[in-house]
Amino acid sequence: MGPSVALIAWTHFEAPEDVAWSTDAEGGQALAEFAGRACYQSWSKPNPATATNAGYLAHILEVGHLSVLEHGSVTFYFTGVSRSFTHELIRHRHFSYSQLSQRYVPERDAAMVEPRVIAEDPELHKKFVEATEASVRAYTELLEGLEQKVAAQAANSPHKPYSYLPGPAEGRERCRECEQVWPCPQAPTKTAMKKAARQAARAVLPNATETRIVVTGNYRAWRHFIGMRATEHADVEIRELAVECLRQLQRVAPNVFTDFVVTRLPDGSEVATSPHTEES
Amino acid sequence: MGPSVALIAWTHFEAPEDVAWSTDAEGGQALAEFAGRACYQSWSKPNPATATNAGYLAHILEVGHLSVLEHGSVTFYFTGVSRSFTHELIRHRHFSYSQLSQRYVPERDAAMVEPRVIAEDPELHKKFVEATEASVRAYTELLEGLEQKVAAQAANSPHKPYSYLPGPAEGRERCRECEQVWPCPQAPTKTAMKKAARQAARAVLPNATETRIVVTGNYRAWRHFIGMRATEHADVEIRELAVECLRQLQRVAPNVFTDFVVTRLPDGSEVATSPHTEES
Amino acid sequence: MGPSVALIAWTHFEAPEDVAWSTDAEGGQALAEFAGRACYQSWSKPNPATATNAGYLAHILEVGHLSVLEHGSVTFYFTGVSRSFTHELIRHRHFSYSQLSQRYVPERDAAMVEPRVIAEDPELHKKFVEATEASVRAYTELLEGLEQKVAAQAANSPHKPYSYLPGPAEGRERCRECEQVWPCPQAPTKTAMKKAARQAARAVLPNATETRIVVTGNYRAWRHFIGMRATEHADVEIRELAVECLRQLQRVAPNVFTDFVVTRLPDGSEVATSPHTEES
Amino acid sequence: MGPSVALIAWTHFEAPEDVAWSTDAEGGQALAEFAGRACYQSWSKPNPATATNAGYLAHILEVGHLSVLEHGSVTFYFTGVSRSFTHELIRHRHFSYSQLSQRYVPERDAAMVEPRVIAEDPELHKKFVEATEASVRAYTELLEGLEQKVAAQAANSPHKPYSYLPGPAEGRERCRECEQVWPCPQAPTKTAMKKAARQAARAVLPNATETRIVVTGNYRAWRHFIGMRATEHADVEIRELAVECLRQLQRVAPNVFTDFVVTRLPDGSEVATSPHTEES
Repeated sequence: MGPSVALIAWTHFEAPEDVAWSTDAEGGQALAEFAGRACYQSWSKPNPATATNAGYLAHILEVGHLSVLEHGSVTFYFTGVSRSFTHELIRHRHFSYSQLSQRYVPERDAAMVEPRVIAEDPELHKKFVEATEASVRAYTELLEGLEQKVAAQAANSPHKPYSYLPGPAEGRERCRECEQVWPCPQAPTKTAMKKAARQAARAVLPNATETRIVVTGNYRAWRHFIGMRATEHADVEIRELAVECLRQLQRVAPNVFTDFVVTRLPDGSEVATSPHTEES
Repeated sequence: MGPSVALIAWTHFEAPEDVAWSTDAEGGQALAEFAGRACYQSWSKPNPATATNAGYLAHILEVGHLSVLEHGSVTFYFTGVSRSFTHELIRHRHFSYSQLSQRYVPERDAAMVEPRVIAEDPELHKKFVEATEASVRAYTELLEGLEQKVAAQAANSPHKPYSYLPGPAEGRERCRECEQVWPCPQAPTKTAMKKAARQAARAVLPNATETRIVVTGNYRAWRHFIGMRATEHADVEIRELAVECLRQLQRVAPNVFTDFVVTRLPDGSEVATSPHTEES
Repeated sequence: MGPSVALIAWTHFEAPEDVAWSTDAEGGQALAEFAGRACYQSWSKPNPATATNAGYLAHILEVGHLSVLEHGSVTFYFTGVSRSFTHELIRHRHFSYSQLSQRYVPERDAAMVEPRVIAEDPELHKKFVEATEASVRAYTELLEGLEQKVAAQAANSPHKPYSYLPGPAEGRERCRECEQVWPCPQAPTKTAMKKAARQAARAVLPNATETRIVVTGNYRAWRHFIGMRATEHADVEIRELAVECLRQLQRVAPNVFTDFVVTRLPDGSEVATSPHTEES
Repeated sequence: MGPSVALIAWTHFEAPEDVAWSTDAEGGQALAEFAGRACYQSWSKPNPATATNAGYLAHILEVGHLSVLEHGSVTFYFTGVSRSFTHELIRHRHFSYSQLSQRYVPERDAAMVEPRVIAEDPELHKKFVEATEASVRAYTELLEGLEQKVAAQAANSPHKPYSYLPGPAEGRERCRECEQVWPCPQAPTKTAMKKAARQAARAVLPNATETRIVVTGNYRAWRHFIGMRATEHADVEIRELAVECLRQLQRVAPNVFTDFVVTRLPDGSEVATSPHTEES
C-alpha cells in the first residue's frame, strides 16, 4: 500500500458587499489579495501588472509580503505514511495535527511503509518483511500478555463495587474502598486497561508502522514546508510527500505556489525549488 | 460610524471518498469531527450520544480534545475599530493579521472611534470631538511640513541622475554619485519620501483613529479569544467585538460555539461565558 | 527623554557532567553548540574549523541549522518608546511581552516620544509639542469627567451594602440586591471604575505617548527581528531600536550575531544587514 | 539504562539600575515579578501579601496573569528516553527542540527503553529483549546492504572527476558530465550516501529505541506541559518525565511551580496536579 495524500478542506471566500472591489480568482487566492489590498486600502487597480489575482500575488511573493498568505488554509489527510515521517513532520509548529493514536488503536494488523530503496531490492525487501512481521508478532504477544497482567492487577485493586441496597444492582453500587458511587474515580476501567497494555506493547513497533494524520496549514506554512522538505537534503519519504502536496496546492491555489518548479535529480527522484524560498 | 465585523472566509470540507463515514454537518464542523475520528479510526457510530455532529463535538468540548478544533478556520474583516483595539487584539499570537498601515495610507480624513461612555454624554462628547479634530489638523500640518522637508533633503542628495549619452534621456541615465544606472539604490523615491513623512506625522494621531484589519483564526483560537475578551474584565470595545464575533461564529459553526452563552451585566453591556473555558 | 534599551536577562548554561565535552564560550552560545552537537552526538572535535564556539556557530549559520539558536534567550526592557513602535513590535509572534497598560496606569503626566525628523525642525517641533500637550490636557479633562460619571453610575447601582447584624459593620454586610456577602460580584469596585474611566479617556492619547515594555526572545527570534526591522524599509524608530538591540546582542552573544554589519545610509541613519538573512 | 533529565540552562536576571525596586528572589522568578510590575509600574510594595516574590507570584497565578511567566526559561537534556516519548513530546509547539538524528547517527548499538510494566515481568521482558535485539540485527544488516547498494549507484553516476591538467590532481579536477569544478553539485558525497542508507534502514527500528533531546521552554510552557502530561491519563513514560521535570523546576523556580502537588495513584505511580491548571 502506497502513501496517499487527500485534499479534504480549503478556504471559501466571499468579499464584503461594501468594498468596491472584485477579482478574477476565488477562495484563498482572492482572500490573500483582499488582505493585501486592505493594508493599503488600494481597491482600485491602476497598475495593469497587478490588476489580476495572478499578477497581484506574484508581486506579493516578489516583495516578500508573506503575511497575507496566512489567511487561506488547506487540509490534507495523509494515509499510508510511516511514523518516521510523522516524527519529522510534526516538528513544523505552524501546522495543526490530528494523528492516529497508538495508545488507543491496536496495531495487530498494522501495515508497514517500506522505503522504496529497500522495496526495489529483493534481498533487502525480504529482510524488511521478515523483520517487520517479527515485530508485529512480538507486539501481538506482548499485548496479550500485558492485557492479562493489567487485568490481574485490576482484579487485585481494593477498589471494587458492592451493592448497598437490596434489589437490582444497577445504580445502587458503591466502592468498597472509598465509599463513593461506583465506578469510583480509582476504579480500573476497561478503556484505561487496554490503553495501558497498548502503550507498553507499542514499544516494539517499528518506525515503518503505518500511521494516518490530518494536517492543516495556511499557505505560508505550506510554502515553508515545501521549501524545507522538497529539497535534495530531505528524507526521501517526506520529500515525495512534500512534492505531492505541492502538486495539489498548485491546483487549488495556483497563484500562490506557481513559483515552485519540480525537477528530477540524477537518481530520478523529484525536488521542488522556488526563487523565493530559502532553506532555513 | 460604528464598528463592523464582516465574516469573509471559512472552511469548506469534502470527506475523502475512501473513508466509510458521513455526518450531518458541513464545513469546519464536519472537518473537526473527521479529525477526531481519524485519531481513533472510529468511523462507525455505535454510541447514539455522539452519532450526530452536534453530539460528537459536545463530547470533544467535554473531554477537552481541543486540538481537533484547529482545522477549521474563519476570517473576519473589522472596520470602524480603534487603534487601541488592534493594539490589544494583536497580542493574540494564534491569529493572522493584515492591517491598514498608517505608514502607507495618509490619515487626513481619518475617522475617529468614540467610546460609547463618552459619546452618550454631550459635554464629554464635545471635548472628544474637539480634541480629535485638533489632532487630525496637527497631523495634516505636520504631514505637509514633513513632505516639504523630506523633498528638500532629497534635493540635496548627491545621488542625482545625469544623462551619459546624447539623445533622449530615458534609459540612458546614471547616478552622479555612484555611477549606477538610474534610479540607483540610494535614489530617494517618491514612495519612500511619502512614507517617511507619514510615519513621523502619525505620532500625533490618537488611539481613537479608525483602523481596519483582516483577522484569521482557527476555531480553537477564536474560542480562546472569546473566553478572554468577552468577559467583564475586558475593555468595552474589544468585549463588544468579541461578542459580535461569537454571534457570527455561532451561525457558521454552531456546534463548536454552542456552549457560550451571552448575558447582560447590570450596566446593560454584554458578556459571554462557557463552562468549558477559563480566563487564563 | 530618549529611548532606552536595557538588557535585563540572558541564559546561563552548565553542561551536564556526564558528557565529555567543553567549549570556549559560556551561556547561550555554549548552549547552542551543545544543542547542535547533541543532534549528531559529535562531542569530539576532529575539524579545527569548528573546534571553537565561534567556528561552530559560524558553520551553524552557514548551513542554516537555526533551530539550535532557539535555546538561548535574551530579555530587554524598553523605555521611552512610542505606542506606534509597540504596535509594530508586537506583531512579532515569537517574542513574549509585558507592557505598561493604559487601562491601569493613568497618563496625566505621560511623556511623548518625538520623531527625530520633527524634533530637529523648530517649527515642526513646536507644532508637535502643542498638539501633544493639547491631547494630554484633553485626556486629563475627559478622565475627570469620566471618573465622576462612572462614580455616579455606581452610586445608582442597586447593589449596595447593608449591615444585617447589630455591632461593627465589618464582615457583617450583605448586598441589598442579591443578598450575597458584601462586596457582591456585581458591586462596583474602585479599581473597576478607574479602569473604565481610563480606558475611555485614553482614546485621545496620541501614538507618540511613551510606553514601556519587557520583551523576551530567543536568538533566532532576535535575528529575525533584526533582519526585518534594521533595514532601510523599516520605520525610523523601530530601526534605531533594532540596531541598538543588535549592538547589545553582539556583546552578550557575539558568535550568534557576528554576521550582522551596521552601516550608514546617505541620510546618516543606520541599518544592519547579514549575508544569512532575508527580509521575508 | 534509565531515563535521565539534566537541567542545563536557566535564566539569569539583573534588574536595570534606574528602577527603584528589588526583590528577595533571583533569576527567572525575579524577572517574572519585574515584568508583572512593569505592566502597572507598581514598583513600591504597599501590600504585604505581595511584597515578597513568593507572594507576588502566588497572586499572579491566582489572577491568571500567566504571560509574565513567559520571560523566564529552562532547558533540560533528556537521555535514555524512547522515540515514542519524543513523538508525543514534540507536539508541544511552545518548546524548542534539538534531537538526536537517526539520519545522521548510526544505531548499530542503539539502547532500548523498556516500559516498566514489561521489565518487571520476566516473561514479557524476555520477549521484549528478543524482539528489540532482532530489530537491531535487521537494522544492521539492512544498513550494510544499503550502503553497498548506494555506493554501487554512486559508482554508476556519470558525475565523475577527471584531471584536466597534467601534474598533481588536487584542485585540478572537473566533472566529466557537467564540466564543473569537482566535486560538482551532483557528485555523490560519502555523507549523503551514508544518510541515504541510514534513513532507509531505520524503518525497522522500534519505538523503544533510545533517543536524546534538548528541550527549552519558558515557565508558562513547562506549566502547561506538566498540567497536561503529569496526569493519570498520560502515557507512563511521559508522565514520569513530567513529574521529574516538575521536581527540578520546583528547585530552580519554586515560586512559579509551588502550586503543583505530587501524589501517588493506587498503582504506586505518581501524578502532579495544581488548582490553577486545567487539562485542555
